[in-house]
Amino acid sequence: MIKSMSKAELSELRESLSRQYDSYKLKGLKLDMSRGKPCKEQLDISEDLLTVLKSNDDCFDSTGMDCRNYGILDGIPEAKKLFADLMEVSPEEVIIGGNSSLNMMYDTIARAMIFGVDGVSEPWGKQEKISFICPVPGYDRHFSICESLGINMINVPLSSEGPDMDMIEKLVSEDGSIKGMWSIPKYSNPTGITYSDEVVRRLAALKPKAKDFRIFWDNAYIVHDLREESDKLLNLLEEAKKYGNEDMVYVFMSTSKVSFPGAGVAAMAASTKNVDYIKKKMFSQTIGPDKLNQLRHVRYYKNVDGVREYMKKHAAIIKPRFDVVLEFLSKELGGLGIADWFEPNGGYFVSVNVENGCAKKVVSLLKEAGVTMTGAGATFPYGKDPDDRNIRIAPTYPPIEELRIAMELFCICAKLAAVEKYLELK
Amino acid sequence: MIKSMSKAELSELRESLSRQYDSYKLKGLKLDMSRGKPCKEQLDISEDLLTVLKSNDDCFDSTGMDCRNYGILDGIPEAKKLFADLMEVSPEEVIIGGNSSLNMMYDTIARAMIFGVDGVSEPWGKQEKISFICPVPGYDRHFSICESLGINMINVPLSSEGPDMDMIEKLVSEDGSIKGMWSIPKYSNPTGITYSDEVVRRLAALKPKAKDFRIFWDNAYIVHDLREESDKLLNLLEEAKKYGNEDMVYVFMSTSKVSFPGAGVAAMAASTKNVDYIKKKMFSQTIGPDKLNQLRHVRYYKNVDGVREYMKKHAAIIKPRFDVVLEFLSKELGGLGIADWFEPNGGYFVSVNVENGCAKKVVSLLKEAGVTMTGAGATFPYGKDPDDRNIRIAPTYPPIEELRIAMELFCICAKLAAVEKYLELK
Repeated sequence: MIKSMSKAELSELRESLSRQYDSYKLKGLKLDMSRGKPCKEQLDISEDLLTVLKSNDDCFDSTGMDCRNYGILDGIPEAKKLFADLMEVSPEEVIIGGNSSLNMMYDTIARAMIFGVDGVSEPWGKQEKISFICPVPGYDRHFSICESLGINMINVPLSSEGPDMDMIEKLVSEDGSIKGMWSIPKYSNPTGITYSDEVVRRLAALKPKAKDFRIFWDNAYIVHDLREESDKLLNLLEEAKKYGNEDMVYVFMSTSKVSFPGAGVAAMAASTKNVDYIKKKMFSQTIGPDKLNQLRHVRYYKNVDGVREYMKKHAAIIKPRFDVVLEFLSKELGGLGIADWFEPNGGYFVSVNVENGCAKKVVSLLKEAGVTMTGAGATFPYGKDPDDRNIRIAPTYPPIEELRIAMELFCICAKLAAVEKYLELK
Repeated sequence: MIKSMSKAELSELRESLSRQYDSYKLKGLKLDMSRGKPCKEQLDISEDLLTVLKSNDDCFDSTGMDCRNYGILDGIPEAKKLFADLMEVSPEEVIIGGNSSLNMMYDTIARAMIFGVDGVSEPWGKQEKISFICPVPGYDRHFSICESLGINMINVPLSSEGPDMDMIEKLVSEDGSIKGMWSIPKYSNPTGITYSDEVVRRLAALKPKAKDFRIFWDNAYIVHDLREESDKLLNLLEEAKKYGNEDMVYVFMSTSKVSFPGAGVAAMAASTKNVDYIKKKMFSQTIGPDKLNQLRHVRYYKNVDGVREYMKKHAAIIKPRFDVVLEFLSKELGGLGIADWFEPNGGYFVSVNVENGCAKKVVSLLKEAGVTMTGAGATFPYGKDPDDRNIRIAPTYPPIEELRIAMELFCICAKLAAVEKYLELK
């Protein structure tokens, strides 16, 4: 425990850590652990997706519709079936989008800003104040959407079970400005936790003051297991039906980390009432997304089992990277009382809480030595981590040797920052 | 001239036309001339576009960036270059979108509704009244966007030179609620006319009362020539620069009718100031559109000359269809004084003005006999053609034999409706 060291011990440790840090700095590293990007080997496994549609005759869907031509706003039937099976909903509850689920989320909120939502036609953009509940730490891109649209964000702490439900129940029942809630319910970005059944049930049963309150259920890591023992997430749309709350839920996912991040297929699921409403608004918005890419994905991955098979190939590539991260954390920071983290069964991140007040320092030390991390604070609304302690590690992209070096250095910096903090307190 | 016929002559003609009409009705036709869709033969010519990216190694752009992965909001460099060359602007003035230019137009307006535009940060959605100038007849999907967003539409008549500029200059200089203007400046949908140099110059020099007034320059048919003699359109963005009006212009195009309507690439062009602003807003909107499809298109069509070569192949397929339409119109309706039309050098439509008050009747007669046309009125805002006379003919999709039958019947119906009108007036 660093906390209980004497001033002399701390000084000595600082000197040793500084020496180690300086020796890394001399190496002129250039490593990037900032974004949750699949690595080249992962992209390579879906090579044949590129050419699965080979000829003109390959371009017709199951109804005989020519996917090269105009038509179909909400997705070809076989794509709706595949995504329905993945999200455990019915095809009528599915809308297929372009290549970006983030874009579908943005559009869903932008539509609410302009038109309101089904059943509550007062546009959010005309209301004085719109707030979203943001479980923290969370996904910076969610928070960017809110910030860009001027939506007030309310932090709610996320434990290993999910967000603090007492707090959420109180907030949404009392504050009518709360129109939405972000959530990455499975292998949460960044903490890697999965919402417990109880949390999902309590979300399903919410009694929000605002009738146009919506849960944005970003199921980005729905099939992104790392290990044999995978987390099981309760189906929120199904649960919500038990309380007549099915219109309160928008579910999102994509194949960005199944096939290609830059050229995958995104989808959303919602009650048929919501789907009808959204489709009506979508009609003026676009002719419809790329159907050939939908067909490509269905022909290539075929069905849920096909997708799961590919996810095993992904896991085989990225699990060793997660192992490196977790091994270093445990070996170098375990038992020191200056950091905690969660060992996820899936997803794309390891989230580390370093000593309070030290995250910025750690990230800047790493930066100075040539290792780019997601900015400290990025996992919180407005980039403000109130305790300045959370750091998101994205292990998938860098080669494993680089990751090893980066993690060695990460642990040195985490210790160095903690030691300096305690020295100052002495 | 039907107009000058006696009652007896008209009655006789009606009888003969009715007999002809009834004989067609008995055929149980099922023909569709409603939408401007390329036909199968057109889609087939780009078959190799499907497999132009064959292997993992094919997926890197000119900078070495992996187009399968995340990154790049506004398009890969070679796609920006290709579209810049097509639109005769510089790559810095280009943003590449997904597969739908309509979606880019919608998003551009939706952004203005939510945020305002660069330099004028008052959101359109917070203003009491927003109006758009709509040259008529025009494109129904443009009008749908306005209707959906509650934007007031003001009709301005379109001649063979372009929209009535006296009217537009007066309107935009007096009415500050006018924030936009639709335009399909080349091979206009549906009339097929191209804006004259004078019209483009006067648009470039507009002095709108609203500082956030924008021209939506939907250059959908930019390379869609039918004949050797193609129309030349002046470059609005370039012209506008001469008046310091470059921020007033958004240009749009896509490859929907070059490659595949359902899976093409869309792009927009604007001043670098507008582009910077839009990119800033886009950052919260999406990770970025499908880069593999951009790369596919660039690798396949290579450059402007490559695109033009394919457009000649398209013309070879669809020009005979246009010829059928124009031949029937001229042979059957020429000189009768009951219809006028324009012979376009490109685009996707022939627009026919039948006798005032007869368009709905003609379309419904055709419908009854199994021929689906674009709904009468669809070429006007709110679906209301004040003279009930414009009908849009989309010749590209149906097989040429079907088109011949449909046009025979069209001409019979146009005459029948006119004769009935004049009989009523006698």
